[in-house]
Order: sequence, then structure tokens, then C-alpha cells
Amino acid sequence: MKVALPKNLLAEQIALLERVIPSRSSNPLLTYAGLAVGPETLVLFGSNGEVDLEVRLPAQVQGEGAYLVPSQPFFQLVRSLPGEEALLSLERELELSSGRFTTRLSLAPMEGYPELLFPEPGGPSEAFPLQATLPAGDLLRLLTQVRYAASNEEYRAIFRGVQLEFSPGGLRAVASDGYRLALSELPTPQPFAKKAVVPARSADEVVRVLKALGEGEVALALGPGTLGLAMRGEGAEMRMAVRLMEGEFPDYEKVIPKDFPLRVRLQVEPFREALRRVSVLSDRQNHRVDLLFQEGRALLSAEGDYGKGQEEVAVAMEGTPMGLAYNARYLLEALAPLEGEAFLEMSGPTSPTLVRPSGEGGYRAVVVPLRV
Amino acid sequence: MKVALPKNLLAEQIALLERVIPSRSSNPLLTYAGLAVGPETLVLFGSNGEVDLEVRLPAQVQGEGAYLVPSQPFFQLVRSLPGEEALLSLERELELSSGRFTTRLSLAPMEGYPELLFPEPGGPSEAFPLQATLPAGDLLRLLTQVRYAASNEEYRAIFRGVQLEFSPGGLRAVASDGYRLALSELPTPQPFAKKAVVPARSADEVVRVLKALGEGEVALALGPGTLGLAMRGEGAEMRMAVRLMEGEFPDYEKVIPKDFPLRVRLQVEPFREALRRVSVLSDRQNHRVDLLFQEGRALLSAEGDYGKGQEEVAVAMEGTPMGLAYNARYLLEALAPLEGEAFLEMSGPTSPTLVRPSGEGGYRAVVVPLRV
Repeated sequence: MKVALPKNLLAEQIALLERVIPSRSSNPLLTYAGLAVGPETLVLFGSNGEVDLEVRLPAQVQGEGAYLVPSQPFFQLVRSLPGEEALLSLERELELSSGRFTTRLSLAPMEGYPELLFPEPGGPSEAFPLQATLPAGDLLRLLTQVRYAASNEEYRAIFRGVQLEFSPGGLRAVASDGYRLALSELPTPQPFAKKAVVPARSADEVVRVLKALGEGEVALALGPGTLGLAMRGEGAEMRMAVRLMEGEFPDYEKVIPKDFPLRVRLQVEPFREALRRVSVLSDRQNHRVDLLFQEGRALLSAEGDYGKGQEEVAVAMEGTPMGLAYNARYLLEALAPLEGEAFLEMSGPTSPTLVRPSGEGGYRAVVVPLRV
Repeated sequence: MKVALPKNLLAEQIALLERVIPSRSSNPLLTYAGLAVGPETLVLFGSNGEVDLEVRLPAQVQGEGAYLVPSQPFFQLVRSLPGEEALLSLERELELSSGRFTTRLSLAPMEGYPELLFPEPGGPSEAFPLQATLPAGDLLRLLTQVRYAASNEEYRAIFRGVQLEFSPGGLRAVASDGYRLALSELPTPQPFAKKAVVPARSADEVVRVLKALGEGEVALALGPGTLGLAMRGEGAEMRMAVRLMEGEFPDYEKVIPKDFPLRVRLQVEPFREALRRVSVLSDRQNHRVDLLFQEGRALLSAEGDYGKGQEEVAVAMEGTPMGLAYNARYLLEALAPLEGEAFLEMSGPTSPTLVRPSGEGGYRAVVVPLRV
């Protein structure tokens, strides 16, 4: 099997695979990158056991076959090739040449490598019977807006994932660690109703790949225990399969407060900056910052081992003046996806606060205040 | 004591101190930053026990005194101040205010803090009786060109430093780990003859500070066990004192080869790129790359667990064809300070090779080939 393609195209696209393929693994074959050919196409693939990724590049090809090549030296060599074109000849070894440089890399047989199943961009398939299509930018936004709220703890493992909820009402992403919650919604009706929990780390890989591919439509598919993605990016086609977590989130709707004795409208940027400054001196364990809302001002204050800091920010208030304390990190993270104007809606000094944009936008976050 | 100065000036200049002041230390006072005043000057100082640094900034001042402030929250707060001006009021606490933000930081007494001695920019002083002046860029070049060759091993501790040699013939910096050597020379006559070994890590701090200060003249001074530096940078004056290592390098001149059966002239950039590519497949322990010089070509080849690579580079040769093997990392590091055209001068297949620029330039490196 022989392949010829522009060196730069190959070098750019292997970057997508590079983070997925592990440098060490209990299955050493997973440290290899796969090379195969289709009609005028070089197919690169790899997996870390949780995320499978395939990238298809236009190339001149001859012959057929599928081979495994040691990924680290292969990636390093491809990036440093001196010529404009990369020539790959695979038989018992991979001969990679470009300009005056030639190298021979040993290959491993495909035997023992897991079978990778990907969705078909065209529509549902046997392996992925449910399929929806949406703009890649929307999926990217849903995932990045809620990712921070996912748990890192072993306790209640389901919270280490991001739940995607497909329904005729739209697509929603939710994450929570039991102390706070973030959700982001897209109103576009989905062709099926299903919940799927993606491990947060795998969600990070999806985000990374979507960012690299730029704008376009992404096909989002569900098969048994698997979320599939397919997308045509600039110069390459990408397909991905992500192992889902078992189970789903407990009913979180009930922790989202509905009645608010105090509603505060504020400019996100100056409020966030003030919160950041004041929090520098907060207690290092609980990052406690006190907020007193009264007479159209928020008075932020914190005190820790090194001293105390305070600052005032003008806000618009509706309701009863109130004093609360938050873990500053949690509140900063809840505000991070927002810009312009936002609402903090307080259900009480020790009961959950809702954070949301003042205008449209499907983002909402719930933060529980610290006990005073 | 009260101080007022532009926030941006303060924020920029504390960056110099920030890396020197440790976040943890067996003497907790070293984690503090010092604040004092001079005539229309705010003096900031800090030390990690090996490197002392003082920065003087123009400021409006009232009163006098010297105080220690917890450096991490102080630096973080200064960077995030909302206003254009920073106001510092120091008495029992530091009150730092800017715009609507006010904070109070606890202070520590100066008692127990080491006395810091710096050279005087004007000329020799009691603490630093020997003093020379040179362009900061020249000192920067000497240190950065040889730094890589310093040892990381405990064995023969003196090689963990960079030796500065002041003499009427010029100023030389040398580093070696016993297997290779780098030296860089400035022909400008120095007003005294003395050798001083600067710990490599402290040399890194000197490099960092010189880079931040930009162009100008630096005063380089020697006192008992100490190298002093003083320089006026953009907007600030800097003084530094670096603890020296005891002793000096053994006579290294004798390992620098003088007779060369083969001299190779090459273009650094393409040779280096080829060497980098070929070395990808080299043995992971010794990074061995074989070089065969014959008929106006260098044939580079390497072989490791994953396969083998080779490449040819055109060179100009004078002398006997020769085959040698090097640790590719050592050869790449020896070539790193060079650009354009360079000489590799071989004293034999298993005896030291001299690397130097083909034109002027005080840089030379010695690399010992691997035994074939």
C-alpha cells in the first residue's frame, strides 16, 4: 500500500489524533496509530479505549490494507519532514520519505487491535440507530458552558460526566458535582428522546476536536453505550466514537430554585473582576467571599490569614436586601460563560442562587451559598 | 510611610521579583517582599537566599521605614488593581487601595530578614571592591550561549555553575559537565583578573532579569563570595547580588583539541534539521546518531526500537573522510547558539570535536563522540 499527500495536510491532521492516542497503555497496541486507505483517501485512526477517532484525508493511494505504526516517532517525523510531499509505503515496514530524508518504521499487525465503529455521516446505521445533526458551534457551546461543574470525585461517579438530553424540546447539556449545577440548552427540536452521559474527560476531547475542525454541521449519533460524531472539517473528515457512562443523573430539576426574594442585575465583567480581587485574601480552604446586597450596591469582602479586602460594585436590585457568602471559585466559574448583563437570583441566604444571562441564552447555573 | 505610583509601573516591575521570591522557604521571611522608600523612590526587594534582588521605582513618597509584605497575595492584588494609581500606606498593616478597591494586608517585622548588600552603580564600594561595566546584551549572550553545558549532577559540584573569567584579555563564560564544554568570549579588556563560578540556576535568574530590562550598560561587581549587578532599565533601577560557588573549574584548556585531521564547513540550519529528524529514531538511552563524512556529504543515520532513519546533507570538507557517532542531543545543543555557517573540527573518530562559527564570534563548544 502506497500513499502520497501534502506534508502540511498530514502534519496538521495528525495533531487531532495525537492527544487521543496514549503514550502508555495497558494495551500497548493503543499506543499505535492506525493507517489504512479508502478511495483517494488516507484513513488515520486511534483510540485510548474511551474515545475512538478517525480522520480521512484526500491522498493519492495504491493498494490496500490496514497497518499500525508506533505513533510517537511517526508523529514527530511527519512534523519535521523536509519536503512538501510525504510518501508512505507500507508493507512489512513503513517507509516514509520526503526530500532527502528516508526512514523505515517497524509496523505492528492489526491483530488484537479493538474494532472501531463510527457513525455514517449520511444518516443512522446499524451501530448508531439514532442520529441528529446540528451546527458544530452549538454543540461546542453546550459542552464548554457546563463542563466546569462536573465532579472530580469518585463519590457518585455519574457526576463525573456531562449529561446530554435529546428531546423534541431541544438538546440540553447538564453537569453537576452535587454542590452546584450548570445547564445549557439549544431550543432546536431533536429527532429522538434520549439521555446520554459522556465522561467529562471524553467531553474535553470532543471539544478539542470540534475546535480544531472549525465551523460546519456535526452529526451526533447514539448507539448502544456509545455517542458517535461525524463532521467534515477543512481538508479532512472526522469521525469519533465516545464510550458513555452507565446510568443517568438523579432528578436535578428540583434543586433549581423558582422563587426569589431578591433579584440582582449586574454587569458581569466589573463584578467578576471585583470578586477576583477580593477573593485573593479569602480563606484558602473554602474561598469564602461575603456579599451584602443593599441600596443598589454589592459590598464584597473577604478575610484570610494575610488580611482583608473589600470592594463595592453598583448593581440593580429588586426585592429584599440580603447578605450571603459564597465559595468565590464556584461563583466565578458560574459567571465564566457569561458576558454583558446577568442576573443573580437569590432564593434565600443559605438556599440555592440561580445565575443566568439577562437576555436570551440557554445557560443557567445553580450555586449553593456557604452557611454563614 | 505612604507611596503613590502608577499601577502599571508597579505591576510590571514586581514581575522581576516574583520569580526570585520563593513561595516556600525554610526561612518563612524569605517568602515576603520588602518595601522601603528612598528619595522619590519606592524600593522593592526580595531574596531566595542565593539571589538577592532590589528594584527601585519613581514614586511619590512620604515618611520612611522598611516593611515585609506577604508576597503572593501582594503581587496578585497589585496586578488586578482596578484604578490607574496604586496607593500604599504602611504602618501596622499595608493598606493598598486603587479605585473602589481597598485591602489591608498584614506585615511582618524586618527583624530576622537577612541584610542585603548590593553594588553601587557609580563604582566600586566596600562590599564590592572590583567592578566592571559592559553592555547588558553582551553579558546576556555569554551566559545564554554556555548555560546548556552546565551539569545537573551532584558529582563534581563545581560543574553545576557557569564560570566567569575576568581578565585584561576580556571576559569569558565557561560551562561543562565533564563530557562536553561550551565557552563564549568577549574581547573587551576587563579592569581586573578574577574567576567567579555562578550557580547555573542563579545564572538563569540573571538572564531573566537582563532580558526584562532591555538594552543598556550593566555594572558587574565582585565582593567576597558574591557577584553583584546594577542596571538602569526602562522605568526602574535594578540591583542584584548572587552568591558564588566556592572554588573554580579544573584546567579545561587541555581538553580543547588543537589538531584536526578533518574540518567540515556546513550550513547550520539544514544540518540541524536533518540531525533532529534522524535522531527521532535513535536509541532512547544514548541518542546515538552516526555521521559519515565523505565526498562532500554528511550521511546521518540512526537506528532504534522502532526502525531506522537516514538523511544526506551537503557539506564542505577539508581533510580525511571520517565516520563518528554522537549523542544527538549534545551535538544539537552545541549547535544551538549558532546560525549561518559553522565548522565542525574533528580531532579523530573518538576524540573531542570542536564546534565553532565559521566567522567571528567568541563561541566554541567541545563534544566528545560516542565510542563506536
